[in-house]
Amino acid sequence: MKLSHIGELGLLDYIRTRFISRSKDVLTGIGDDAAVLKPRVQHLLVTTDMMVERVHFDLRFTTPYQLGFKLVSVNVSDIFAMGGTPAYLLLNTAVRKNTDMAFITSFFDGIHDALRLYAIKLIGGDISATQRDMSLCATCIGYGKKVIHRSGAKAGDTVYTTGTLGDSACGLELLKKIKRTSPPHPSLVKGGSTGGARVPRRISEPLIKKHLMPVVRNPNKFVRYATSMIDISDGLLIDLSRLCDESKVGARIFLDRIPLSPQLRKAATETGIAPVQFALSGGEDYELLFTAPGKKKINAFAIGEITESKRVIVDLSGKEKPFSAAGYQHFISQGKGRPLP
Amino acid sequence: MKLSHIGELGLLDYIRTRFISRSKDVLTGIGDDAAVLKPRVQHLLVTTDMMVERVHFDLRFTTPYQLGFKLVSVNVSDIFAMGGTPAYLLLNTAVRKNTDMAFITSFFDGIHDALRLYAIKLIGGDISATQRDMSLCATCIGYGKKVIHRSGAKAGDTVYTTGTLGDSACGLELLKKIKRTSPPHPSLVKGGSTGGARVPRRISEPLIKKHLMPVVRNPNKFVRYATSMIDISDGLLIDLSRLCDESKVGARIFLDRIPLSPQLRKAATETGIAPVQFALSGGEDYELLFTAPGKKKINAFAIGEITESKRVIVDLSGKEKPFSAAGYQHFISQGKGRPLP
Repeated sequence: MKLSHIGELGLLDYIRTRFISRSKDVLTGIGDDAAVLKPRVQHLLVTTDMMVERVHFDLRFTTPYQLGFKLVSVNVSDIFAMGGTPAYLLLNTAVRKNTDMAFITSFFDGIHDALRLYAIKLIGGDISATQRDMSLCATCIGYGKKVIHRSGAKAGDTVYTTGTLGDSACGLELLKKIKRTSPPHPSLVKGGSTGGARVPRRISEPLIKKHLMPVVRNPNKFVRYATSMIDISDGLLIDLSRLCDESKVGARIFLDRIPLSPQLRKAATETGIAPVQFALSGGEDYELLFTAPGKKKINAFAIGEITESKRVIVDLSGKEKPFSAAGYQHFISQGKGRPLP
Repeated sequence: MKLSHIGELGLLDYIRTRFISRSKDVLTGIGDDAAVLKPRVQHLLVTTDMMVERVHFDLRFTTPYQLGFKLVSVNVSDIFAMGGTPAYLLLNTAVRKNTDMAFITSFFDGIHDALRLYAIKLIGGDISATQRDMSLCATCIGYGKKVIHRSGAKAGDTVYTTGTLGDSACGLELLKKIKRTSPPHPSLVKGGSTGGARVPRRISEPLIKKHLMPVVRNPNKFVRYATSMIDISDGLLIDLSRLCDESKVGARIFLDRIPLSPQLRKAATETGIAPVQFALSGGEDYELLFTAPGKKKINAFAIGEITESKRVIVDLSGKEKPFSAAGYQHFISQGKGRPLP
């Protein structure tokens, strides 16, 4: 059954029935001109992110479930990056009218499961037709007691990341290389490989999953120590540069301390790009990058330190090389495999 | 100069510099992972609306200024429709990388002037490339003391609209008919006409302007009387039906009381569609439709009354005819000129 069969009002009914969101804090959810929320005493955090077909995602690679899940994750990530607690989501979807209802329900399955994972509620949105590419937006609202900005880093602070870097970008590269369709091609399911790449499925799939369906980190365990924080969405160097810009400081990063997954180390060689290159400049890790004073006992990877102004990477031989903001930027043709800084 | 010349970071700088939004209530505006707002004691209202190229707008007809202005207006309209005061806006724009910077700055001029008109602040957003059609989203946050829902109408209440109806839909029809490009064709500027339509410019332009650049109504003068409210975005009958559905009531509307502008009366004949047809089923009026008890002194057009359950239109001869929800719906092919109910 196609979306054109049930129409906008049918889709609205489906969403409204599935995501009933009245509770003691949501006075009005989906179904009025605006959502109505009870006031709270904490600071209000608001963020919005969009995902456009053939720019942010490719329907040959992602399942609709993963797409819905990721749309929620990337928005929640920004609330976490402020040290906040996400609470509500608004959703805008522009889809083609000949879209199959199975696609729509699977997309909303992904939204639903991500909402449940992060314990947030869908309170509103807008649905529209599109002539060609799908376009998705979400707005996430959260609350924070102690808000962590990009601007609080001080010289001497330690720089941390919450997980391995580069996996997502390598996963994307593998998808392009092996042109793995969604669901995976039978030869891959059996552990085989297609195209030019010879990467076993047990290596490639965790990387691909990190790209298509990121699960983002709740900072509640270390938020009391953090002096500054940002999520790594465009790449370690560009996001670290942003944090340094806002904090008016520099940073010294040690190449051998950047956490790389064993899968990345193995798969990267097949792509012709160095693992560390993915980790430094690959986007969409959605790990948190934060700073904290001195040597706290923090369950995260210490990758360097904040300096007065110098921005350098220390390579494996101990030599310092300056770095600048290399990472993904819209509107500019991207060169693959940028030189190491 | 093209957008690809300045890139995403250049555009972000432009927006950030132009829309500085730090104030005593906006603790963090554009430039961090999320905006941070001071808590308030009033209810929080949140709404979001999207506009997709070749679905909601046609770049042959609208100027970028009008497009930016309208994007803000349609979102503010939803906050007004709850009886609230709009305060903040978040903006998502997906544009082609070969877009001219003159287009971008003019688009943001429209955003800027609408923000000023409604006294709201831009506090965040997201910018992205798109391969083909432009896609725009905005999220508006407001506050309300007495929130007016769609669901509060009672039998015996009077039904009001804040302005003339059908102008916007007729304006759109004229644009399609005369294929007036933006800016207007010289023959039109001189008061002439092009194509098949013979509508003088002083008649057509107010209708076209109502479509391309609606200015929405602040309900503060009558919000204390209102028992229910909705904005007319999809057409009088569909939006009145929604209000009746939510309130579990009916309505009796008098055809001769529906306010029609003199421009609509004159121009409609040229389109082959009856003026009242535009008023009943044409979308995008962005007037408010509300109910209030008895006969208050309210500066708005009383067009009918709320009934227990009957939903009827009284025609010019005094005959009652049932109505149902006729109006614009995405995903379903729209028939032009639906029969009168």
